[in-house]
Amino acid sequence: MASKILVVYYSRTGNTKRMAELVAKGAKEAGGQVTLKSVGETKAEELLEYDAIIVGSPVYYGSMAAELKKLLDDSVDFHGQMEGKVGAAFSSSANIGGGNETTVLDILNAFLIHGMVLQGIPSGDHYGPVSIGAPDARVTKQCQALGRRVVALADKLR
Amino acid sequence: MASKILVVYYSRTGNTKRMAELVAKGAKEAGGQVTLKSVGETKAEELLEYDAIIVGSPVYYGSMAAELKKLLDDSVDFHGQMEGKVGAAFSSSANIGGGNETTVLDILNAFLIHGMVLQGIPSGDHYGPVSIGAPDARVTKQCQALGRRVVALADKLR
Amino acid sequence: MASKILVVYYSRTGNTKRMAELVAKGAKEAGGQVTLKSVGETKAEELLEYDAIIVGSPVYYGSMAAELKKLLDDSVDFHGQMEGKVGAAFSSSANIGGGNETTVLDILNAFLIHGMVLQGIPSGDHYGPVSIGAPDARVTKQCQALGRRVVALADKLR
Amino acid sequence: MASKILVVYYSRTGNTKRMAELVAKGAKEAGGQVTLKSVGETKAEELLEYDAIIVGSPVYYGSMAAELKKLLDDSVDFHGQMEGKVGAAFSSSANIGGGNETTVLDILNAFLIHGMVLQGIPSGDHYGPVSIGAPDARVTKQCQALGRRVVALADKLR
Repeated sequence: MASKILVVYYSRTGNTKRMAELVAKGAKEAGGQVTLKSVGETKAEELLEYDAIIVGSPVYYGSMAAELKKLLDDSVDFHGQMEGKVGAAFSSSANIGGGNETTVLDILNAFLIHGMVLQGIPSGDHYGPVSIGAPDARVTKQCQALGRRVVALADKLR
Repeated sequence: MASKILVVYYSRTGNTKRMAELVAKGAKEAGGQVTLKSVGETKAEELLEYDAIIVGSPVYYGSMAAELKKLLDDSVDFHGQMEGKVGAAFSSSANIGGGNETTVLDILNAFLIHGMVLQGIPSGDHYGPVSIGAPDARVTKQCQALGRRVVALADKLR
Repeated sequence: MASKILVVYYSRTGNTKRMAELVAKGAKEAGGQVTLKSVGETKAEELLEYDAIIVGSPVYYGSMAAELKKLLDDSVDFHGQMEGKVGAAFSSSANIGGGNETTVLDILNAFLIHGMVLQGIPSGDHYGPVSIGAPDARVTKQCQALGRRVVALADKLR
Repeated sequence: MASKILVVYYSRTGNTKRMAELVAKGAKEAGGQVTLKSVGETKAEELLEYDAIIVGSPVYYGSMAAELKKLLDDSVDFHGQMEGKVGAAFSSSANIGGGNETTVLDILNAFLIHGMVLQGIPSGDHYGPVSIGAPDARVTKQCQALGRRVVALADKLR
C-alpha cells in the first residue's frame, strides 16, 4: 500500500501554493497517495491520518505564518500520536537571507517535538526547499525532489 | 522623560502572565513607563507607541503561541517603523529542554527582522528568561533583571 | 546484525562524558554495537563506519565546542556519503536557558546538511537530552532512552 | 573619538574575505576606526579593545567555521567584559538555503551570551548579509550598509 502524504500550505501571493503543488507532484511520482490542502481546509485531527506531513509557509518575520502555527498548536490534543511520522518543510520569501531557513527550521522543530522523523538534503537546500519570489527552475527541482524523498523515507519506515 | 515599555504576553496557565508581571515590575523599578497587556488586548499599531517591546509566550511546539505570532504577522503593516526600538523575550514551558530557548529566539528573530535592537544576558538565561513551570526564585530574579535591563538600554538609545 | 552506533563527545568537566556513557548504555541495552569515544580519539573518516552518530557537547557560547565543530568541518571530505545515517545530539551546561537547546540544534543542523535522519522526542527533552550541571535522575533516564531510541530507528532504516 | 570596530573573518575561497573588506569599507565611511583581520591573526583578548565586533564566516555545516568557534570559545576567559559591545555577523555559502542564516544566527547567539547588543536589518538580509558564491551588487550594498549601521549603533551606545 502507498504511503499517505499530506502537503499543507498557507499562501497569499501563490508562491507557496505553487511550491506545494510541485512537492505534491514529486510525491505522486514516487508512488505516494498525496493530499494537497491549504491550512484553511485542514483540521489538526486530520494530521493523524497520514504517514508523512509536509508543511509549506511564506516567511513572516522569520517563522511560519500564524495560520500554520495555529494548526500545529491545535495538534497538542494528539500529542504523542504523531510519533514516528515523517515531517518536512519548505518556505517562500521575498529576499535571500530574509528568514527562509529559520521558517523551515521553525516547522522542523515542531515536528521534532512531536517525535517525528526528519531527513536533511545533502545537495541543494539542506533544511528544505526555499524560494526567493516565484519558484524558478532550481526551486522546481528541489520541491519535486523533496516530495520523492519524503515518500521514500515514509515507505522505508512503514 | 521615561522610556515607554510594552510587556505583552499570552498565558493559559498563568505562568507566563506571572513572568510578565515580574518583568513589568523590574522595568518600573528602573524608571520605565510600563504597559502590561495580554495579546488579546493588543493591536499591532499600538506597538509603534513604545520605545521597547517585551514579548512573553508559553512554549508551543518550540515557538511562540499562534496568538502572538498573529500580532507580529499583523505588524507587517508598519514594517520599517519599528526600527531602532528595543526588543526582548521570555518563555515558560513544562520541561527543561522543551523548546524554551527556541521560543525566545523565535521572538528575537522577528525583532531583528523589524530592525530592532537586542541585548543578551551574560549571566543567567542568556537569550531571555525561561521558566520551567511556575516562576521560582531564580526566574523571579531573571525576569525583574530583564525589565531593568531593557529600560537601561532604551534610555541609552533615546 | 546489530546497528553500529558511535557516541562521540567533548568533555572538560566530565558532565558531557557521563551523559555519553549513559547514552551508550541505553544503545547497548537496545542491541546496538556501540563505540564510545572522545572527539580527540575520533577521525572524520571513521564517521562513515557507523549506522548512527550521536554527538554530545558542552554548551560553549550557544553551540558545540570548537573541537567537535572541527570534526564536522573535516567530514566535508565525505559529503554525500553520510546520507541516510541516523543522527542525534545531547548537551550539558551550567544553567537553564544557557544555550543547551541551541547547542543540540547546532549539531542536528549539521546532520541535516549531511542528509542524515533525525527523530525528535515527544516527552522530555524534545531535541535531545540536556543536563544542567552533572546528570541527575531525569537526565540519566533521558540519555538512556536516547540511546535505545537511536538504535530502534537505525535498525528500522537498515 | 571614533568607535573602534573589529571585522574578523575566516576565508578559504576569498568570498568571505571580500565581504569583510566591504563591511570594513562601510564602517570607515561612517567614521569608524576599523581593524580588518583574519581569525588566524586574532587573539581572544583583542576582542576587548573594540566597541563593536563583526564576524564573517563561510557556511560549514550550518554554523561558523571551527576556527572562528575556537576564537569565541577562547573568549570565555573574558566573560562578562564584552557586555554592551555591539555585535554583527555575515556569511558566505555555495547555495541558497545552504545554511547561511543559521551561520549568521550561530554567531549572533554567541554575542547574546556575551551580553552584547545586536540590531537587525528591516530591508534586505535581515539577520546579516549572506552571499551565495562571490559577492554580487546586492551583497556589496548589504555589506557596506552593515558596516555603516554598526558604527551608527556603536556611536549611539558610547
